[in-house]
Formats: sequence, C-alpha cells, structure tokens
Amino acid sequence: MRGKILVVGGVAGGASVAARVRRLDEYAEVIMFEKGPHVSFSNCSLPYHLSGIVEDSSKLVLMSPEVFKKRYNIEARVHHEVVKINRDRKTITVKDLLSEKTYEESYDKLVLSPGASPIRPNIEGVNQPHVFTVRNVVDIDHLNTHIKQNGIKNIAVIGGGFIGVEVAENLILAGYHVSLIEFANQMMTPFDYDMVQILHKEMVDNGINLIVNDGLAKIEENYIVTNSGKKIDAETVVLAIGVKPEITLAKDAGLEIGETGAIKVDANYVTSDRDIYAVGDAIEVYHKILHKPTRLALAGPAQKQARAAADHIYGNMNRQKGVIGSFSIHLFDLNAAATGLNVRTAEQAGIQCDSVYVMPGDKVGLMPNSNPMHFKLVYEVPTGRILGAQAIGKGNVDKRIDVIATMITMNGTLEDLKDLELTYSPMLGTARDVVNHAAMVALNLLHGVYREVKVSEVRKLVEGNAFIIDAREKSEYNAGHLKNAINIPLSEFRERVDEIPKDRPVYIHCRSGQRSYNMVMALQHLGYTNVYNISGSYLGISLYEYYNDLVTGREKIVTEYNFK
Amino acid sequence: MRGKILVVGGVAGGASVAARVRRLDEYAEVIMFEKGPHVSFSNCSLPYHLSGIVEDSSKLVLMSPEVFKKRYNIEARVHHEVVKINRDRKTITVKDLLSEKTYEESYDKLVLSPGASPIRPNIEGVNQPHVFTVRNVVDIDHLNTHIKQNGIKNIAVIGGGFIGVEVAENLILAGYHVSLIEFANQMMTPFDYDMVQILHKEMVDNGINLIVNDGLAKIEENYIVTNSGKKIDAETVVLAIGVKPEITLAKDAGLEIGETGAIKVDANYVTSDRDIYAVGDAIEVYHKILHKPTRLALAGPAQKQARAAADHIYGNMNRQKGVIGSFSIHLFDLNAAATGLNVRTAEQAGIQCDSVYVMPGDKVGLMPNSNPMHFKLVYEVPTGRILGAQAIGKGNVDKRIDVIATMITMNGTLEDLKDLELTYSPMLGTARDVVNHAAMVALNLLHGVYREVKVSEVRKLVEGNAFIIDAREKSEYNAGHLKNAINIPLSEFRERVDEIPKDRPVYIHCRSGQRSYNMVMALQHLGYTNVYNISGSYLGISLYEYYNDLVTGREKIVTEYNFK
Repeated sequence: MRGKILVVGGVAGGASVAARVRRLDEYAEVIMFEKGPHVSFSNCSLPYHLSGIVEDSSKLVLMSPEVFKKRYNIEARVHHEVVKINRDRKTITVKDLLSEKTYEESYDKLVLSPGASPIRPNIEGVNQPHVFTVRNVVDIDHLNTHIKQNGIKNIAVIGGGFIGVEVAENLILAGYHVSLIEFANQMMTPFDYDMVQILHKEMVDNGINLIVNDGLAKIEENYIVTNSGKKIDAETVVLAIGVKPEITLAKDAGLEIGETGAIKVDANYVTSDRDIYAVGDAIEVYHKILHKPTRLALAGPAQKQARAAADHIYGNMNRQKGVIGSFSIHLFDLNAAATGLNVRTAEQAGIQCDSVYVMPGDKVGLMPNSNPMHFKLVYEVPTGRILGAQAIGKGNVDKRIDVIATMITMNGTLEDLKDLELTYSPMLGTARDVVNHAAMVALNLLHGVYREVKVSEVRKLVEGNAFIIDAREKSEYNAGHLKNAINIPLSEFRERVDEIPKDRPVYIHCRSGQRSYNMVMALQHLGYTNVYNISGSYLGISLYEYYNDLVTGREKIVTEYNFK
Repeated sequence: MRGKILVVGGVAGGASVAARVRRLDEYAEVIMFEKGPHVSFSNCSLPYHLSGIVEDSSKLVLMSPEVFKKRYNIEARVHHEVVKINRDRKTITVKDLLSEKTYEESYDKLVLSPGASPIRPNIEGVNQPHVFTVRNVVDIDHLNTHIKQNGIKNIAVIGGGFIGVEVAENLILAGYHVSLIEFANQMMTPFDYDMVQILHKEMVDNGINLIVNDGLAKIEENYIVTNSGKKIDAETVVLAIGVKPEITLAKDAGLEIGETGAIKVDANYVTSDRDIYAVGDAIEVYHKILHKPTRLALAGPAQKQARAAADHIYGNMNRQKGVIGSFSIHLFDLNAAATGLNVRTAEQAGIQCDSVYVMPGDKVGLMPNSNPMHFKLVYEVPTGRILGAQAIGKGNVDKRIDVIATMITMNGTLEDLKDLELTYSPMLGTARDVVNHAAMVALNLLHGVYREVKVSEVRKLVEGNAFIIDAREKSEYNAGHLKNAINIPLSEFRERVDEIPKDRPVYIHCRSGQRSYNMVMALQHLGYTNVYNISGSYLGISLYEYYNDLVTGREKIVTEYNFK
C-alpha cells in the first residue's frame, strides 16, 4: 500500500510490527517512536543482569536504531515520546526529549505498543532514591549500579509475581540478603496454593526471607515496615507489585478502553479507530476458556499480536483463538510452568472442576538426574475437558505443560491425553509420560473408580486422628511418617487386612501414590466402601507442609519430611 | 469376574497387563510366564549398563517375582516357557526350563506379550561366541562380561537403529573402539536423510567409525568383512539389525497373523480368538496417518495396549486412535526426537507433502547454554495438516516434538501450530517458540509468499555456479562461506541491489535463514520474480555436507564449516 506507518513503542510488540511491515511492503515508510534510549531489548532477561548471568547490560539491547535502519530501512526514533494522537487529521504529536522540541508526524496507519508500567503504591517513602522498579535496561542498570556502588547488603523485593521472584533469585545469586514480601497468601498466582508451596520451599531453602500474607506499609532509609508491623532491613527496595497498561495516549484520543482497563481491540487488533491498532501489554485480550476479556502481559502473545496487526494492515485477516496464559520460570534448582486455569481461577469463574496431583519420575529412575515431577492437572467435571496444568521439578516440566497448552488449544479431553503417544527414551522421559499418568488418575476420579482426598486436607485428618495407612515399606516409614499413620506395607496388607476397619473412613498414602492406589483398589474389591487415596502422598504432604511449618512454627504432622 | 488370567511374557507389556488386572479384580488368579530369569526389566535402559551409567545390571530388573507376589498377589513363573496354546480346551502347555518338566495350565483369558526377537542374519561366522544380540538383562550381562574379561578393544555394532546407536554410544563412553555398520544410506530412519547428517556428524565427532551404505558379509575371529570388502577390526560383534515379532506360539495356535507379519488384533487387542489378547512388539497396530497396519516396537504404546487389554477383559472398551510413532534419543551431547511421518515415509505413502527446516535458538541467546535447534516440520499440501517433525540439538528437542505429536493426534494444522501459546521464560525457551516459527515459515511456503530450495540442493547450485547471495555480515562471510557465494549483507543490500541480476535465479542464505528471508521478501517487492531462500542456511549447509565430505573426501562446497 506504500503508505506511512507509525509505531508507538519499540520493545517486543512495536519492533515486531515494524519488522513485519517491512517484510510485507518494501516501500512503506515505517517510523518507530520510543521514549527511552533503546528499542528492541530483551524485557524478560532484565533480572539476569543482577546476578551477572547477563554480565554486560548492553547485551540486553538486541538491535540498535542504526541496525534497524540498515537492515530493515526502519527509522527508530529513541528519546521521542508520543504525547498525543490527533485522530481528526491522522497525526501524532511527538516530543523530542533531548531537544525538548515538539512536532507532528502524519500516519496512514498507527500502531500503539506502549506496554505497561510498574505500579508504584501510594505509601510513605516510596519516592526515595533507593526505591526502584524494573521495566527497562535503564532501570536495571540504575538498580545494579546503586546496589554495587553503595555497598548494599539488604534488599527488599515487594511483590511475588514473576518479575519479583526473578529479581529476588538473581539478587541472591549475586550474594545479597533478600526479603520478598507478598500481600497475598502465596507468590506466583498461576500456581495453586498447594503447588506453590514447593516454590516457597525453594525460595527459603536458597536463603530468601519470604514473607507472604503481608503488605508494604512504609519505606524508611534502611528498613521497611510491613502491614503487620514487621521491620525488615533493606537499604534498597525493588517494587514489583504489578503493572498497569499504558492507556493514557489511547484514552486521551477517545479510543475505547475495555472493561479490564486496557485498550479494547477487535479480532485483528484494530482499536475503535480503524486506522489505529494496538498490541502488547496495553491491550485487552479474549480468554479462550473463560470466554471474557482479560489482560496478559507476556512476550509471546505480544509478538503474535504484532504480526497479526501488521498482516491486517495489508489485508490478511487474523484467526482469533483467544489466549490461555502459558508461563514458565527457572528458579534456583527448579523449573516451574503452568498453563490455562488453575483450580482457583476455574472456581472463581464458576466452572465445575476437579484436579489430580501426581509425582512420577521425570525420566527412568535408573538414569542420572532422575527426579520426581510434581504435576497438577485441572479438568472440567463431568466433561473431562482439560482446563489447565501446573508442573514443578528439576527436570523437563515445560515439556509437559506445553503438551497441555496444546491440548487446551485443540479442545482436548482426558481421554485424548491418556492415549497421547509422546517421545520416550530413558534419558529423556518415561514410557508412560507424566501427562498420560495424570490423565489416567483423573479418569479414575471422574468415573468414580476410586476417591481421594487432597494434600491440603491431610493436616485436618491427622489432627482429627483419622485412620491413615502408610503403604510404604517399614524402612521408609521409619525414616519419616505422618504422626498417627499405621504402617501396613502393600507387600504385607493381604495378611494384615483384618487390621483395617470397615466401619470408618480409611485414608491411604505411600511415597508417590502408586502403592496406595493399588491398596485402595484391592480394599474396594474386598468390600470396603469408605476408602480414600491421599493425593500427593508422602512426598506431596512433606512439600505442602514444609514452608508453613517453618514460618509459623506450628506443630508438624510428620516425624520427618521426605522430599525425594 | 474372578477368573484365571494367564500372561505370556513378563516384560513391559506382560507385567503391565498383570498389574492392571489385579487392580481391576482382587480375586482373579493371575499367572505370568517368562522363559528368561527376569520379569519387568527396563528394556530401554539395557545399553546404559555398557558405559556404567547403570553400573549394577541387577538394577535393570525393576521387580522380582517375590515382590510381584507380595505386592500384587501375582505369580510370576520365570524360566517357564509357554510352548503351545490349546485353544480347544483353553489351556497352555508350559515347559519348566529348569526341571524340564512340561505341564498344562488352564485359562479363562490368555494375554500374549511375547515381544520381538533380534534378527540374526544367515551369514558366515554369525554363530560364534563373540557375536552378541541385546534383548534382555542376561544378554547385556553376557556382552559386558565378555568384553571386560577378554580385554576386547575393537567392537563392531551392526545396524544403525536406536539399539545399535545406543549400544555404540555406550561402548564409546566405556572406552572401546567402535565401528557402526549400517546397510542403508543412513542410520535411524525416523529421521530424514538431511536431518540425520547432524547425527552422523555427532557419531564421528565422538570417535565412532560410522559406515553407511554397507552391509555385513562375514564375521571372522578378530575382524568383520563388509559387503564392499572392507575389513574392520572387531574382536566382538553386536548384532542390532532389527527385530522380528515373536509369532510362533500364535501362529501354531491358528491365530490370525496380519499383513505385516505380526499378530492381528482388534481395537481392544483381542486376537482372532475372543479369549486371547495380544499386546506389545508382537502385534500389528493401525497407523493413524497412513491408515494401514504397521509394526511399532516401542515401550510407550506397549504399556497403553496392556492397560487397554486388561480393561477389556473387564468390559471396558478401548478408544482406538491409531499410532503415530514418537521417538527420542540422547546421543553424546545431542538430543534428537521425531514423530509422525518424515518426508521419505510420507512420499512412500503417496501423500503430497512439503517440509521446512529451521534452526532458531532453543532459548534466549543471552542465557547460558543457548544453542540452535534444528527442526524439520512435515505437512500435507495443500491442506496444511501436520504430518510429522524431527528435532535435533543440545537443548529441549523432545518438548517440541511432543507438541507436534499432540498436534498430530488432535488433527492440527499449520494455522493451529502458528498460534499455539506455549510456555516461555528466557532460561527455558523463546517468546516465539521453534514450533511457532516453523509453522510461520511453512505457511509462507504453502501460500506461495516466497519460495525456497532445500539444503540438499545446495551442492548442485554451487557446482552449477548459480547466483548465490550470502546475506551475513562480512566478518561472518570471511570466517567461512559457500565457494561461489557473493557477500551482500542485508545491512548493505539496498545500496547494492544493482549487483543482483533480474534475469537469472537468485538464491539467498545467511546463518539461520532470518536475514535471507527479509532479503527475499524485499527483492520480490522490488520486482524480482526468481528469488529463492536457501532452507537450512549456512548452519544447515555445513551440517548437511560435513559427514559425506569427511568419508568420501569429495571437494567441499564451503571454505570453512560453521556449526554454531
């Protein structure tokens, strides 16, 4: 169309739009405006500069304006802030932040990719120079220089989302004392409360002072004060409590803002003005499972939106499928990943669901570095439609979550998942993959083949002195067990079945749920009608209890934990 | 049903059937017959005993007959060979190999899981004591003891399937000189000829004397002779040329054998006798994409078949979806995986298809251990239906192949794959995953947005003195390039476009295909009608050419390879 296309914002979304437009039209005039000094930097890699994993912060910038010009014939105007959209005459008003001059630039099509900005809570002390946010290369450089030059020892990170957690991890790796303060009762909300306890443990095991259920009340020079009155040493504070979409420009121009507070777009990322597109963290997207608008500040979707917007400028329609939300994180020795809904978000949405929590090996047990993988699968009841999954472990957890993401996208059910024929070799997996295993357990529950109680209910059972059988061998039991569990190994139970009462509920666990499952099935065949497998089994119970035992000092329900 | 269920064969399939039957029926009498000394061993882990990765071979045995009895109340009769099925009176004739006594055992339902046996070619010297096959723990123990006790230095492995390659790898890791002889023009046939060159290189780089296109003619005491007359030092020979299904028992009993030479079963793994089931490597399965019977000797499908057969004994029908074939292997520093059809098998089946070969980074380039991932996607033309994929690299290749396996199972297309919202964090992937990337390239080809030539065609182009542009920067070009390529970096091409002829085909590559793609698109907009991207780009060309350059000593088409 040989027109003039302006792009506001030069990071993931903006740079992708510009490059895509060039591939579709060698003659278009393309100008990208960025108020900061850099276009096209690796947003998601910023925290890794703090630990030195990315030693040179200039490496975070993937492409300079000069290279954009030479390779793509795209003009990238850095230090240029777009202050206004003049829709009536199809221009934008731009302020050159270095010369302080303001000018207008006309467009045929305008693409907004302004991103989202870190939220700064309105509390005492928040505007001091030792309080930082992390949005771009300049921010991370400032933070890193500050803590190095001032000999900082104690740092408080406020907010347990992905950025907060990654910043905390990288600061620990760099040798600082780090506190992480989270207002909710858990960090990283894509994970359910039960699964996240594994990550809470990983944080404290690696020396992070993790405080949940507490907010930031006040920032002093050398410490912070929490809502509960705790004083925590911190000569530096990093705010990572969330982001808000940058909508000022769009709102001032009268573009429609959606119910989530982000810019409203159609299936092709066109705003309420047909010559203006918007992509990335500033827009509202449609959730495939929840069937309603949502916000999703992730790089992957932003890139896809950018490509679709550019394509639409050139007449190609986007096939809009809605988002599901897929996440991963590497955290010390663990990998964690999640996709779709968890039980909390499904229940909030009023979707009838259930879940299973299994922990098979991530590869053949004989192979080096074989470890349990903690996997939770969430599905709709009674349809068996797959809603989401969460996986945590030392091994290849993102593989399993990507399979579930694919299943959700393709409207898969537990039946589909059970039969899925996945790759296998002893070094890389197991013949029955984790996801097959989880689907089989879920189908058993869905069809009422047996019943289970969740790992979160075990404390109540122990405290209520329920009849709990530990189906492991005696040596395993002796190394640590639930305080009132009776040890009847699966290998002995047929001789000792008389010890098991028929007139009260019986709860059974072993190490990872396999032996207890066999015992539950056998007891049911023997006429027991009130038998439950304990989901999560001893490994899961240990991990679920550990962090709260530690921080509350409450009485433990186990004699010793077992994490392996 | 409280009946009597006999299982022939106690490895993956058989042991799974027996354990599943027990869970479905506490009262059933279950007896498993195994002619060897072990039930339930890790078949796929056998080669790892040779390197010492599994140091103690007894660890390969996952469960003893005693534990089967105690945990599952299943009788496992080892050293018991089932020699005949007497269908008229519903019994089997069993030979106790230790006492040499023969007896009959009756069944209500009989499950055959006899597996497949290694093929021994009928050639001179094949029956000598230094010639081995690898099927079970006894075999691998014999082989390992033999080579250790006799101070063996040179070993020839015959056959480049998964077992042969894994045996060769583990012998190299143990310090032996190893030759691998493969009759076909490549090893590991799930990979296309172009992709497998990467694995050929890995083999020779790690010291394996890899000989393809040559067969075994004769085995002497200290060497072997190949069909082409090569004499290769080998005091020990391992035969791994393939397996044949164990059908004697079934055939003698008059059970139907399928067109592939394996036992024919229905959707529930029932043979032509409704009281006899068969599972595992001895049966014929239905291929989901090819729509015809096939054989698939893999542990994962065997386990699923076992479960389905046991379920059917108890009245639960199996939902038969057909197999697709999903494989993975860890090979020295590489992981490799494949699923579905490759170009060769698709073309053999008469399916109209095309493929793309891309090599994006497996994670964000700034992160430690970021490496290119070589990924080939095969799809149907013109439907865009996904048929298969192959991936090779140091990183998480099986993740990407499992996503493709899921897509194939769910009848996904390139459009579905392009939009797939997968997990991402810098340490674990890229915002645009490899599979999204491949789908975008494939859609471009499918829709004729641009054209490409395959990596296998580059030698012909160079030898024919085609007009080839190397779009990398000068320093990259100087470090190694195609002998007649002209260096026009993408960053200079708009000033130098006059150097590019309009009257002859123009072929463009860079390092991994991204810059050349941009140049191809720009040239097309500038009126060039005969422009081709070179699939695989310089990285792919280097890897494709390397092994054959090395073994044939032919003239190289590159000045220096580039593998990074």
